Formats: sequence, C-alpha cells, structure tokens
Amino acid sequence: MSKLYYMPTKVIAGDGCVKENGNLMWALGRKALIVTGAHSAKANGSLDDVTGVLNSAGLDYAVFDKVMANPTIACAYEGAAFAKKNEVDFVIAIGGGSPMDAAKAIALLSRQDIAEEELFSGNYGNDVFPMAFIPTTAGTGSEVTQYSILTNHKAETKTSIAAPTLFPKLAFLDAKYMEGLSYTTTINTAIDALSHSVEGMLSNRAGAISDSLAMESISLIASCFEALKKGTLTHRQRETLLHASALGGMVIANTGTTAVHSMGYSLTYFRNVDHGRANGLLLAAFLAFVERNAPERVNTIITCMGLKSVKEFSGIMDTLLGEKEKLTEDEIARFTSIAIKTKNISNCMVVPKQEDLLDIFKAVGNIA
Amino acid sequence: MSKLYYMPTKVIAGDGCVKENGNLMWALGRKALIVTGAHSAKANGSLDDVTGVLNSAGLDYAVFDKVMANPTIACAYEGAAFAKKNEVDFVIAIGGGSPMDAAKAIALLSRQDIAEEELFSGNYGNDVFPMAFIPTTAGTGSEVTQYSILTNHKAETKTSIAAPTLFPKLAFLDAKYMEGLSYTTTINTAIDALSHSVEGMLSNRAGAISDSLAMESISLIASCFEALKKGTLTHRQRETLLHASALGGMVIANTGTTAVHSMGYSLTYFRNVDHGRANGLLLAAFLAFVERNAPERVNTIITCMGLKSVKEFSGIMDTLLGEKEKLTEDEIARFTSIAIKTKNISNCMVVPKQEDLLDIFKAVGNIA
Repeated sequence: MSKLYYMPTKVIAGDGCVKENGNLMWALGRKALIVTGAHSAKANGSLDDVTGVLNSAGLDYAVFDKVMANPTIACAYEGAAFAKKNEVDFVIAIGGGSPMDAAKAIALLSRQDIAEEELFSGNYGNDVFPMAFIPTTAGTGSEVTQYSILTNHKAETKTSIAAPTLFPKLAFLDAKYMEGLSYTTTINTAIDALSHSVEGMLSNRAGAISDSLAMESISLIASCFEALKKGTLTHRQRETLLHASALGGMVIANTGTTAVHSMGYSLTYFRNVDHGRANGLLLAAFLAFVERNAPERVNTIITCMGLKSVKEFSGIMDTLLGEKEKLTEDEIARFTSIAIKTKNISNCMVVPKQEDLLDIFKAVGNIA
Repeated sequence: MSKLYYMPTKVIAGDGCVKENGNLMWALGRKALIVTGAHSAKANGSLDDVTGVLNSAGLDYAVFDKVMANPTIACAYEGAAFAKKNEVDFVIAIGGGSPMDAAKAIALLSRQDIAEEELFSGNYGNDVFPMAFIPTTAGTGSEVTQYSILTNHKAETKTSIAAPTLFPKLAFLDAKYMEGLSYTTTINTAIDALSHSVEGMLSNRAGAISDSLAMESISLIASCFEALKKGTLTHRQRETLLHASALGGMVIANTGTTAVHSMGYSLTYFRNVDHGRANGLLLAAFLAFVERNAPERVNTIITCMGLKSVKEFSGIMDTLLGEKEKLTEDEIARFTSIAIKTKNISNCMVVPKQEDLLDIFKAVGNIA
C-alpha cells in the first residue's frame, strides 16, 4: 500500500517569532477572527502579541473568546455566526487544542453552509478561511494537522472533522507562552504529544517520513521525563516539548491516531479526564498489547525513549500521572463498546479485538 | 532568529505507487509535459508507468527528453518553448536531479517571460505549471524542494532558482526505478543525500524539524554503508536510500546547503566530477573543520551514523569514493575564489574563511 505524507503548513519557530513575523499575517487577510479561550491567552501574553502585531500591520480583528475545553459543535457554529457578523476574512487561533480545533471548524463553517448532521461526513468544499495558529500548550499538534476534533453528544464521544483544507497556513511556535503552565497541564499535554508519535508509529499508515518525525519527537519528549517529574523544566526544555508536539502533529496528520485515542475519548467524555491524561492512562497497556505481535516495532519506540522495556515506561507514566481514576466494570464495558466502533481501531498496525480493549481499560489499574 | 519549516509537496511512497495513484494526475491538468533524460526513464520502466497511467486516465502528453547532466539554462528555455508549442498544462519530471531541476525551470519559464539575466534574481510571479516528480535516483531530493539548480556559464558554477511556487505538487517514491542503477551512481547519489542532511544540520537555518528529518536521514544512509561498499543493496535498502534522499530534500528545502555544495560545484563545473561525488570528496574535511568550533554538533552527526569519529567517517568515504581526483594548486586557488563568493558560505553555522576553503580543497588529498 502506498504511504502518503502531506503537511503544507508553514511553521515559524523561535523566541519572539510572532512579533518578528507579524507581517506574514498580511497574506491571510485584512480582518482576523481571533479564536481563543476565556483566560489563558490573556494571561500568557500571546493575545497581546497578536493584537499588537495586527495593530502595527494595520489589520482589524474581532475576538471570539468563548471556546471551552473539549469544544462542542454548538461552539463551532456560534463562532462561525460571530465571524460572519463581524465580516472577518481570516482566522487566528490562540490556545491549546480546544481553541485550535474549534478555530478550524469555525474557519470552515464561516465559509460553507454545512448542516450539523453533515458535519462529520467528510464532504466539504474547498472554501475555508485561511488560518494562523499559535499553540500555548505543547501537546495537541493541532497547529500542523487537518483535524478539528469536537465533542459529539450524539455519538457520546469526540469526533473529527478532517479535510486537507483545514491545515493552517501558518503556525507560530514560541515556548514563552507555556512558561506559566501548571505542571499538571504540562505533563498531560506532553503525554498527548507522546501518544501522537507513539500511535503514529503503531498505525498501519506509518511511513518513512512519519517514522522519522515520530522517533525524534519521542526522543525529545523522553529527554524531558525527569524534569517533568521534578517540575524543573527550563525554557529550552519547554521549547523542546513544543517542537516535539509539532512533530507529533505532523505524524498524526499522516498516520491518524489509533486505539489509544479512541479509548481515551470515553474517559474524557464520560469521566471528564483531561485528553492527554486519558491517553497516558492507556498508553503503556496498549504498547504491551502491541508488543505481543510486533515486538520489534515496540522495541524501536522504547529505545527512542532511552528505556529498556514497556514496564520501565509504564513506571514513568505511573509517576507522571499520580493516583489514577477508578473505573467500574460497567464503565469499562460501555467504553469498550463505544471505542470498538471507531475507525481508529482498524488504523492500528496490530488491530485489537473487543477483549483486548477490555484488558487495556482494566490495566488502568483501579477497578472501583 | 525565527526558524522556518515549509514543505507542501504531497509525497506518495511505496512499491507501485505511480500506478496505484495515477488518478492524482487529474488534479494537475489535462496535458502533461514529461521532462526526462535521453535514456534512463525508458530503461527503468518509469516512463512506461507514467505514460500508462496518463493513457488510462485519458490525459494527453508530450515528451521532452533532452535534459543532459547538469542542465544548462539553454535547456530550460528550450523545454519551455517545447511546452508552449505543445500546449501542455502541467509537468511531470522523471529522472535524477538533472531532469527534475530542469523541469522546475521549464514549469516556471513556460508560464512567465523571464529574461536570462533575470533568471536567478528571485523576482518571479506565482504562475507556474503544477508538477509531479518521480525520482529515479536516490540523492537529489529535488522532488521535495523549491530549487532548480542550473549550470551557469557566466558565473562558472551552478546557480539556484529558488521560489516557494517551485515545490512540486506531487512526488512519487518507488525504489524499483533504482534497481538497475550502477553502484557508482548509487554511491554518488547516496552521498549527495547524506551531504544534504549533514549540511542541513550545519546550516545556521537548522531548526528542530529540519534536525529531526536530517538525523533520521543520516542514520538511514549510514545503515547502508556496508551494502554500498560491497554492492549488495537489497530492494528494501534501495527504498531506505530513496526515503533518506527525500528526507534530505526536506531538510535543505528549509536550511539550504552550505560550503560543501558551493565548493563541489567547482569540481563539477571545471572538472566534470559527478555532483554527489564532488560533495563526498569535501564532506569529511568540512566536518573536521566545523568540529573545531562546534564539536557537539558534529558529534551528533557522527553518532547518527553509528560512528565514533570524523576520521572513521572519512575512512568510509575514502572506501566508497575510490581513487580521488588530483587538483592542482592553481585549481584549488581558483575554486576557492569562486566558492567564497557564494551565499551558501554565510549559511554555515561555522562560517569558513578563504584559507579554510583552501585547506578543505587540499584535503581532497591528491595534489597534482
């Protein structure tokens, strides 16, 4: 089977990169919709940097700061209505995965009338507002993917809109916006990025290019394990995590995610577990499952981390995650029945069966 | 300084990928100009695969098979005139770096009237024929770069046309087209790819993304050193070299090349040394020069190869290259005076002075 690699976003990285390259916004339009959450972009200086750049460039903007964690379909439609009302012609997303994913759906829905029941159909035209993305967490990689992942109450999980037109035109990576992040968020988002690269290597769409990005990403994140445990990340280490997160995004843009994400979505949807943490609770058990059928592949991943075994990796995750959520037998059965239906399952290099998913959920380790 | 990463080409890789994905050509146009050399595309089956795919898809084509090694400016203009006469609307390049680089200039000159004295000015409009590239050597990486490198008699060297519009839309990577390559060509092109990734890591534009691609590329090529020496490459190893070459192309698309390429162009222009071999003759000495000021960086590169020292690397290159060309003192002085003027010199992380270039040329080792 042919392997595809495609990632057309222009990525600009480095301290002060937003201010240094604000002129690039001119190529996108004349009035921006800034999509963000209620607080963090104001607190970490990113919103000020962006509005400063727009003001200097003589570009107008409107701010939609109503994106919640795990954004809903309703939020995307509300943002699109706001965009139309304000007559913007491009989109700037500032934030973690939630504002970034919402911004893509808004950029799409602002230009195309798509009914809610058609939103995940994959049948979209090409007209989407051009986008510039500024991540303020280092995990999602959304700044370099074509995915917008929204909370889907009908399916009781999170569902992707995916279209090549949803790659942002620009992504700005500046680690200074992460300096004030709590260690809980820093760890959860780092684990999300790790999960992207690990799952990308365990996807049946993995290819030479995605593998190279994934291996480097895994190695970079693992180089920060100790500092994550101790809470001693330097600015350069935060930058390392940010780069690793973008690499992980480039991976899943081409491989998709696998069972870990499918399963994690249930933990988030039903138990409100943070997305990255949800992946982290499942990742070691999934690796152990894959290892039984593809030991060399898993060994490559573990070696990239500088570790000797999945067990050693599992121990590190346990330390980073702290006390784990307790799941009931009923929950595990329900989550498994939802996850097994998702398309990410068949995307696995070693496809898990229903009983495998049950075992992986049980390995979270705390049956209530 | 901000670091930029951009590479928008869609890369399709795998055995039979041209035939499997011929339908993608439809997005490019209705009549293709196939740009290739006189012989190899006919011999290795790639031309038949492409014309078969075009015939099946009901797409028309004209073949321009006059591209020589180190293509001239005149060749590019001739190809553009041929394209206009044949009323094509997209370009397919098949071959090594020469047809691919010529094809980019032809795609540009077919759509824009650019005088020869303006050809390397960088001032181009956006109108370029869309392109699909099929490399039949594993070295240049041209299928994923925005560079067209032509022999420039006025400057007595090779000079780049560079424009973001020159990235091909599609690149097809199938190692079967390399099966019949001589070991001399295979070695020279592998060294070219290695040089791209090594130089990319020693460029002052190196960033986290380009580094990750470069390190993997270096490691993949080094994994084939023994088979290159012995002439025992398997199909999978040829595929490894092809992937490594594309990764190297992605690197230099973002970092540019450095002193090695600047210097190598003189060996090619004046002494007709193959491009990859020219880089290979200089690479170890350049690494030894950089090592004096940036030992950690060079150590990272050497470690990626699984080696212990630049000296060990130098020994491998000596074996791969065989008997070396003899240069006269006059030649060395002349080549240095040309190379020192090129912009690639200032692109080095450790910028060499004139006397450093002299020393590196002398280290080719055979003064006539």
